[in-house]
Parts: sequence; C-alpha cells; structure tokens
Amino acid sequence: MPAGQQVAGEPGAEQRGAEFDMSVVQRGARLRRSPFFAATQRYGAKAYTVYNHMLFPIRFADFEDEYWHLIDHVTLWDVSVERQVEITGPDAFALTDRLTPRDLSRCAVGQGKYVAITAHDGGVINDPVLLRLGENHFWLALADSDVLLWARAIAMEAGLRVEIREPDVSPLQIQGPAAKHVVRALFGEPVTGLGYYRFLETILEDIPVVVTRTGWTGEVGYEVYLRDGSRGDELWERVMEAGAPYGIRPTGPCDIRRVEAGILNWGADITLDDNVYQVGLDRLVDQSKTADYIGREALTRIRREGVSRKLVGVEIGGVPLEFNQTRWPVVADGAAIGRITSAVWSPRLRKNIGYAMVPTSHSAPGTGLEVEIPGIGTHPATVVAKPFVDPNKEIPRG
Amino acid sequence: MPAGQQVAGEPGAEQRGAEFDMSVVQRGARLRRSPFFAATQRYGAKAYTVYNHMLFPIRFADFEDEYWHLIDHVTLWDVSVERQVEITGPDAFALTDRLTPRDLSRCAVGQGKYVAITAHDGGVINDPVLLRLGENHFWLALADSDVLLWARAIAMEAGLRVEIREPDVSPLQIQGPAAKHVVRALFGEPVTGLGYYRFLETILEDIPVVVTRTGWTGEVGYEVYLRDGSRGDELWERVMEAGAPYGIRPTGPCDIRRVEAGILNWGADITLDDNVYQVGLDRLVDQSKTADYIGREALTRIRREGVSRKLVGVEIGGVPLEFNQTRWPVVADGAAIGRITSAVWSPRLRKNIGYAMVPTSHSAPGTGLEVEIPGIGTHPATVVAKPFVDPNKEIPRG
Repeated sequence: MPAGQQVAGEPGAEQRGAEFDMSVVQRGARLRRSPFFAATQRYGAKAYTVYNHMLFPIRFADFEDEYWHLIDHVTLWDVSVERQVEITGPDAFALTDRLTPRDLSRCAVGQGKYVAITAHDGGVINDPVLLRLGENHFWLALADSDVLLWARAIAMEAGLRVEIREPDVSPLQIQGPAAKHVVRALFGEPVTGLGYYRFLETILEDIPVVVTRTGWTGEVGYEVYLRDGSRGDELWERVMEAGAPYGIRPTGPCDIRRVEAGILNWGADITLDDNVYQVGLDRLVDQSKTADYIGREALTRIRREGVSRKLVGVEIGGVPLEFNQTRWPVVADGAAIGRITSAVWSPRLRKNIGYAMVPTSHSAPGTGLEVEIPGIGTHPATVVAKPFVDPNKEIPRG
Repeated sequence: MPAGQQVAGEPGAEQRGAEFDMSVVQRGARLRRSPFFAATQRYGAKAYTVYNHMLFPIRFADFEDEYWHLIDHVTLWDVSVERQVEITGPDAFALTDRLTPRDLSRCAVGQGKYVAITAHDGGVINDPVLLRLGENHFWLALADSDVLLWARAIAMEAGLRVEIREPDVSPLQIQGPAAKHVVRALFGEPVTGLGYYRFLETILEDIPVVVTRTGWTGEVGYEVYLRDGSRGDELWERVMEAGAPYGIRPTGPCDIRRVEAGILNWGADITLDDNVYQVGLDRLVDQSKTADYIGREALTRIRREGVSRKLVGVEIGGVPLEFNQTRWPVVADGAAIGRITSAVWSPRLRKNIGYAMVPTSHSAPGTGLEVEIPGIGTHPATVVAKPFVDPNKEIPRG
C-alpha cells in the first residue's frame, strides 16, 4: 500500500504480502547489527527498523498474533538497540546525577531507575533505564538519541574525571506471564525474587549477563543484558531452550501492549520539544533533590507556571485502525489543536486507544475531540485516563 | 536472501523481487518524513533507510541503472535527511568556529565548507557541509548523528549567547552532467556561475531556497535547500519539469559513484572512533588556525605522533560483489588486520573498489591483502590510490 495512506480494516491487513528483503533498510555498512542478528534471521524476522544506528527486528509474525502470545505466554525480543552509555571514573556519580532530575543519591548499587535526561530548557533528550552497577559505575539503556555525545560534551566542558563509552552490552527482553518460569530455569530462584527495577550481575554458565526486572509491557518481564557480543547466538539459544516448555516465541516489541499500559515511546510520544510535565512524567523529577542538575531552573519555572499542553489518553471511535505512521491532526470546534502521537487497536479492549498532545484546556477526561486520519476521514475521540489496562484488574479477552 | 549472507553474481541480483512495504521500516510515528515524501512515493521509491531519525529513499530502480543515469544524464535525490543545525545569535561565530578544526575566519558569508565536527579526543562526530549565511548565521548539513545535542551542550556549558535549532530546511540534490542545464532553467544564469561550495539564497517563484554548488558524486551537481516544508511537493514537481528535457529521474544517493570519487560515508568509513588523519581528511584541519577549538590538543598530538592505522583505497579481485552490508575482515599473512568499510562493483571500471581500514604498515599502494567475504570466501585485494576515478580524465564505459 502507499505508505502515505492509512488503511482501515482488520489490523494486520497492511502486513499481508510483505516479503522481507534486507536491502529495503540496509545499503552499505553504516547500520550496525546486534549480536543476536543471525538468530533473528534464523527465526524468521520479517521486518526491521533502525534505532540508535542499529537494525531492530520489529516483527516475526502478525502484530496481533504477537500481542496475544505476549498476553498469554512469553516472548523474546532483541532490544540490543537499547545501546548503553557507560559512565565510570571518580566523578561518575557527579556527572550522572547532573544529567537527570532524579535524585541518584537515593539509587542504591544494584538498583535501577527510569530516568529522564533533560536539556537546559527542560526538554527530554532521552528516557533511559539507568542501572547503578557501582558507586561510580552507571549504565543508561537508551532510547533513540545520541546521549553519548551529550554526556561527553557536558563532562569535558565541566572538566569531570569520567570515562564515557558505549560498552559491549546488548539487552534481550523476556516478557509475558511465563517470564518468571523462564528466568528461573535460566538463572535459578534468586532472580525471580528481584523487586521491580532491581538487577543482578550473574553468569549463564560462562556467559556474563545482567538480569533486570524491567520491561516495556506492563506484563511480568525481565531484561537480560549480554556483556559479551561474541556470545549472542549462544545466549539466544539458551533462552529459547529454557522457554520451550512455556511456548516462548521471538517477537518484536509490542506496541499494542505498551500503549495499553500507558508506556510512552521517545521520538513519538516524547521529544526534545516536550518536558516531563507535558507528557505526564512528573514522577521523574525528585523535588527534594538538593544537587544541581541540567534543566533544574527551567523545570522549576515550568512547574510553577504550569504547562499549556499535555499528553492525554484518548479512545478513538470507528473501525479498527492501523497503527499511526504519522502524527494525525486533532480537531476541536473546527480548529486543529493538537496531534495524535500513538494510536493502536487493542484487540482485548476492542477499542482504538492512544495518546494525544492537546492544549491543557482540552485535557480533562471526557473531553470530546475529533481525529483526522489521512486517507480515511474524521473519527470521534474522547480524552480518557491512562493506563488503559489496570495491572490489578482481570481483562476480558475482548 | 538471508541478509547475513552476501551473494556474488551480477550486481542487482539482490534487488529482484523486493516488494516495497513501508511497514518494513516504519511502525508508529517515531520516524519523520521528508517534505518530499509524498513525491517519492508517487515516483515509485522502492526502498527507504533511516538517517537522522527520518525516512530516506535509497532506490527507485536498480542501483546500477541509477548509476548509469547519473553518469550520463541527471538525477534528483531527496536528501532531506541531511538535517540542519542552525546556529544564530551574538556568539554564533565563536561557537561554530569552536566546533571544527577548520578556520572559519576564512569562510566568507555566502561560502560553504566541508568540515569535521571533532570530539575532545579528535574523533569525528560528524562531517557536515557548513554554510555561512551571515556573520553570525550558520547551517551544518549533517551526516547521521545528533550534533544538535552536542552543540547545545557545548554552548550552554560555555555560557555562549546562541540559539541552536533544527530549522525547517530540507535539501534536494541535482547531480549529473546535465545538472547545470536544470538549475539554469530553474534559477537563471547566476546560479550556473557558482564556484564549488558557493551558494545563493533565492526564490523559485515564491518558494524560498538556498542553492549550493555541492554534492555527493564527483559529477557536476547542486543542492537545493527548501526553506518551507509545506512547499515540498511543488518544488519537487518544478525540478522534475525543468529536468524533463534532460531526462531527469529520481534516484537514491549513488554509492557506486561516490566511492569512485573517493567520497567517505560517515558511520561506515568514518566513525567517532576515527580521527581525520586516519581517514585521510587532513585537509579538514587548518594548521594556521589561531582560535582554540574542540579537539585541538588531541589532533596536534596525533599529527606529531602519526597514526597507526589508515583508511586506504582497495581493489578487490574476483567476481562482481554486492555492496558490503557488514565490515568484512581484511587479512594479511594469515592474521586479521583490518576491515573493509565500503566495497562496490564499479560497472565502468569493471572492478570491485572500496576502502579498508588497515595498519599503517599495510597502507602503501601495491600492498597485497585478502578480504574474507561472509558466505562467499576469500578474495585477493590490493591497496591503491584514491580517488578511483580522476575527475580530469575520460573514463571508458567498462
């Protein structure tokens, strides 16, 4: 189909007949490959995108099919594209604490945090998972922007004694209700006792890994950070083997499930032009933090003055929609007032759900909006609370 | 074909049967689209890659077919992915001059330069074309890294009075022997008199553009920087109309031709881990520059001490090879000593040509090497001088 045109109908329609050809995304050696690349090819990856200058497998089957497998069983994702920035050296704590409004004096060694890396004007440069591996040893598992350059510029100009590099570290995600069984089989009982955002450094036989209790789904999930790129194929096969009794399958990252869970995607739902208060990530600012950090002044002002636009949850009426590939215009009272940043059909909720950036005046739950979908027409929409799926409630299967 | 495997044979073989499906690279609204996106779809773009977080059309026909059209006629490329960093404000000159080893006091308003943006350790962060639009007004047309973040961090930490942003500017390239006729038809005689790396700010009827005498081919070429994204479709059609008498065709950027010309591709042939002396871009350091700049100390030391590895031209024997998608190992005396960064079959030279990063001990022209091509085997190679095609010599058509 022409990609400028969205197609209504049963989700998955766009995927039919898509023959995979690597030449579609790759010409020359500019784009990097993950240590699991050969495995993803062997297991039939059907589509790749590009993220942090690296190929990212986003689909092995039908998106909806992959969604149900995540909900009901367990899935394995190659998320090596979550490239790490590693910060070490005597001033590593000082620098890392300066990069984020989170108070890292309250982040223990062995603990992780979801953090915002903020610009001087309060804009969100990235929203990585931060792991504290030592007093002065941090990893930032990045969304798709070059924080390596940002961190090096800040450190060098401030004369801090740090080393900042991209280490040989490549994460996998194991997500779904059976994830706990899989990591138990791989790493033993201690890993299943990990609290949310806690991690363990361990080995699988002799393959060095870090296992975290994190993920991009709202389901039970873990990430396994491979620390030796030459062992990618072995680690992948060990996970597939341990997961076999639970029906594990390789899939892409599940956008349907992450939207249900209210999780945001940097680059789509959050950009450099947005601040944490606009996208509802107020919790990423520790107001009691005493140390200075980049963006403190701007964020303090923004908090005091309030924001003029907000990212809200929306339900969009009408037929099931394909996942939006552009930011659809949002209209109220005949005027374009905002944009849809993500919109997907939830097969479980039997609704189109997503996010819209709208003026604060139009952000209250219950507000009626219209969405202009290119090639389809205007659909009615309503502002609703996030998340769409309450983790503590049983959801009927649509 | 499995992408991990290179296929020998006539170039173009990999391309057969590649049905284009946008879902292969795009899921959700994270990746941006160019103002010419609709036009590239209408004109049958068959493949896109991702560059600076944006979709980049890399092919409308067979690569070799596009190559011959560039050599014989004229081609139009959507290179909106060359995103600009715009630097303005009272300290714009001071900041921009600090970002590069080029001496910008010798860059007049109306002049452009090919520059390296260097890190403190001398590594190449990016290699943009810089345009000086005013005393304190610069554009950097970027390769694929987030220089916006780098420049903002440097400026803010140094307290410089600048504004740094990504403006609404999207370049097209018009390349090939008939390019001069096309820009004459569009913009009149003055543009055809532009010296290399000079530019003019002008309008096409009322579409605001900057026209530069630059390009990525070694052929006669121009770039037209659109300054109003809402006019993309109009500008594209005006160029196609003006080019019709000369048989203009939309194509992707031509890697075969740029390798023939000795042009490097950042991310493949140059990375953050390489300095200008390793990749043969010594001319990007103005040794007489008196102002301080980032990387000065490191580059002075590297120049004094010499480099231990170099990027050299190579001819690779054997059957015509597909364009390398990974960095093929280079072997000498049975030991892996380096990597091929780019390698293509030149239909005109009837040779496989490319670049290898090798120890200085193996960098002299005439040195014999071997290249290990995954899935194919070992090919002999020889170090040769660059460029492969002398711009002042007539080349037989293979």
